[in-house]
Amino acid sequence: MRTPLVAVDGTLHLDGVSLEALADRAGTPAFVYSASTVEARYHELDRALAAVPHRIHYACKANASLGILGTLRALGAGVDVVSGGELYRAAAAGFGPGDIIFGGVGKSNQELQEGIDAGVRLITVESEAELRQVSVLASRSGREVRVAVRVNPEVAVDSVHAYIKTGQKGDKFGIPWDEAERVARLTMTLPSVRLVAVGMHIGSQLTNLAPLADGLRRLEDLVARLRGAGITTLEHVDIGGGLYVPYDDEPAADLAQYTAIVVPAVQRLGLELIVEPGRFLVAESGVLLTRVLYRKRSGGRDLLIADAGMSDLLRPSHYDAYHRILAARPRAAQATVDVVGPICESGDFLALDRTMEDVESGELLVICTAGAYGSCMSSNYNSRPRAGEFLVRDGQWAVITERERYADLVRRETVTPEWRTLA
Amino acid sequence: MRTPLVAVDGTLHLDGVSLEALADRAGTPAFVYSASTVEARYHELDRALAAVPHRIHYACKANASLGILGTLRALGAGVDVVSGGELYRAAAAGFGPGDIIFGGVGKSNQELQEGIDAGVRLITVESEAELRQVSVLASRSGREVRVAVRVNPEVAVDSVHAYIKTGQKGDKFGIPWDEAERVARLTMTLPSVRLVAVGMHIGSQLTNLAPLADGLRRLEDLVARLRGAGITTLEHVDIGGGLYVPYDDEPAADLAQYTAIVVPAVQRLGLELIVEPGRFLVAESGVLLTRVLYRKRSGGRDLLIADAGMSDLLRPSHYDAYHRILAARPRAAQATVDVVGPICESGDFLALDRTMEDVESGELLVICTAGAYGSCMSSNYNSRPRAGEFLVRDGQWAVITERERYADLVRRETVTPEWRTLA
Repeated sequence: MRTPLVAVDGTLHLDGVSLEALADRAGTPAFVYSASTVEARYHELDRALAAVPHRIHYACKANASLGILGTLRALGAGVDVVSGGELYRAAAAGFGPGDIIFGGVGKSNQELQEGIDAGVRLITVESEAELRQVSVLASRSGREVRVAVRVNPEVAVDSVHAYIKTGQKGDKFGIPWDEAERVARLTMTLPSVRLVAVGMHIGSQLTNLAPLADGLRRLEDLVARLRGAGITTLEHVDIGGGLYVPYDDEPAADLAQYTAIVVPAVQRLGLELIVEPGRFLVAESGVLLTRVLYRKRSGGRDLLIADAGMSDLLRPSHYDAYHRILAARPRAAQATVDVVGPICESGDFLALDRTMEDVESGELLVICTAGAYGSCMSSNYNSRPRAGEFLVRDGQWAVITERERYADLVRRETVTPEWRTLA
Repeated sequence: MRTPLVAVDGTLHLDGVSLEALADRAGTPAFVYSASTVEARYHELDRALAAVPHRIHYACKANASLGILGTLRALGAGVDVVSGGELYRAAAAGFGPGDIIFGGVGKSNQELQEGIDAGVRLITVESEAELRQVSVLASRSGREVRVAVRVNPEVAVDSVHAYIKTGQKGDKFGIPWDEAERVARLTMTLPSVRLVAVGMHIGSQLTNLAPLADGLRRLEDLVARLRGAGITTLEHVDIGGGLYVPYDDEPAADLAQYTAIVVPAVQRLGLELIVEPGRFLVAESGVLLTRVLYRKRSGGRDLLIADAGMSDLLRPSHYDAYHRILAARPRAAQATVDVVGPICESGDFLALDRTMEDVESGELLVICTAGAYGSCMSSNYNSRPRAGEFLVRDGQWAVITERERYADLVRRETVTPEWRTLA
């Protein structure tokens, strides 16, 4: 965990801002992100790839809050979007079309059209049917669309949870390896599409980079065959994301090893590299602040009932994910507790059977490494308004997302149906 | 499954409305609820309890959309809320304070105050600390608050998933059984609270009603002891919800058996019964409509990539829940497929390895039994706008929730932080 949490006067500060003071001011639950940490991760990756021409496209599915997008845009990042909604957000955050690449396994016709109309740098297609559809829509629009073909390299991957493996045989992502060349060559005959990239994404939280090397060898093989077939339009190779983020005391991703695998392969390919880091850029920057509403003993277990739950941070319940939990006022005394949320179901927990600092009702907890797949997966379950989001940097703070209000919950709804018949 | 889906002219109708015609008009994904089915379930339960004075308080955590709340209010139901947001919704749907009961394991002080200010029928407390807090807040407000004590009867429950068991030793819900009498008697000495009910909720999707009988015996025992201690203010016994809903071909909940257990116990208690059905009233009323974007073959598996995913219906991925999936145009031919969503993760699926009707790209699917814990758990993951919601009844349809628009996604956000320092 490389989050700049430092105790000052007995209370944790993130990027120079007191989390207790911020919680008092802003309320809980609240997501707080260290802008300096996002910047540090970006520069670290940028340096690791310095030996080859490269573009870092932030995979904003990890956290598409405008304030985070703006922070990354200011650094010179591009963005990787996977839906019309993310495309809308990218534009709202000021990314120009050349800085946007558009992927995703299930883009509707409307979404593809939005990508074409926006003139994004490239649209990544994940099936032959989608490539044909892009060609049809592009022709209708009178535009040539730059496409990338995402292949499934079908390499075995060690990852933390089955739900975040994406490059194995039978996965929904990418074009099956044995169809990749044929589909990529189709771009030579289909109207209004130009093949500018081949790509892959083999999964998230890679604990072992060998599959990345395996996948790159497959991409090199594919590119050689495409060049042999007369394709001269390739500009990029896109290797997706997947860099490991430590949620506890594990070592961080080995960027030297990453460089040693990626750089020679990219040099052999003679293409500009695109990477799509998501979690790597933002996870460690963020914490979720929550207050303990009640401490309760039941059946021999100690329960901390917090004001944040699965509606704010789904990962513990959904992926069995570990997030370190700290007291905002650090102390030596330890206890073993369940940290649960206010939602009316037993699956609403942040940590089970966790040995951590011994805290009481009313205290502030800091849920660590909550910058990725936190706010973006939050819901209004139990009609709970979604949390506010805040940036901090060098002792300053800023609201980037206002806490949701009750009135927001029902904005799209009506209590009195206007009954109609279908013509 | 007792959802009124009927094929007319080769296409499924729900409550007399063509789902294809509705999808063409309203777009997909879309939740559609049969008002007649909600009404049928309400009347069925109301009749089953006719022998005793009773109040049916809809546990709106299952689906708190205003159009659903309005439908139940029109039938004479009360409502059970578990958060300030649900309290706001109940009021917005026109429920008077006497028709609202307010429970939940993690109510903040602000939420308790909102309940007190609203003058709800009763506030259910789930810990001694919460009871003391209600007393403090009530005294400050100069009001007497009617409270229910929710006890954990600590009975073993057979249920479908660990996440929906709630009445076992060590659960976060309710007051541990060995503290129940002491905490209930505290109401005699604490200012500004009046004990009007004792209650329990032993879990959801009960496949066996024996634990309900066990729990009721414990409540009878507790009430006898409280009366022996001089408490004369009890009006209600609240037995929660938990009635089984079939998601496939299983039999529906045995209401005769339910009556046989509940009615004699309530008669012996001499109290008015409160029940809190949620899923039972709404699950079977609803379907989720989704269109197949692509049919894809990968690694020997057939994948249907739908335009609805875990952001719309979390249950398959989160609870490993089964939802029957039908083609809107029924046919005999079958295939074994994975039905997956457009979200960029492998955990985004609606059904895996499912043998169902053999459908093609572009076709409409009907995800059944999606009226409960569907829309209320939906999120904007991958920046996907949330689905619209529609009521149908006897051939008519009505919008109750407008589909979310891109602009709604960023309504609370800013891309340019206004940096501040904490005073």
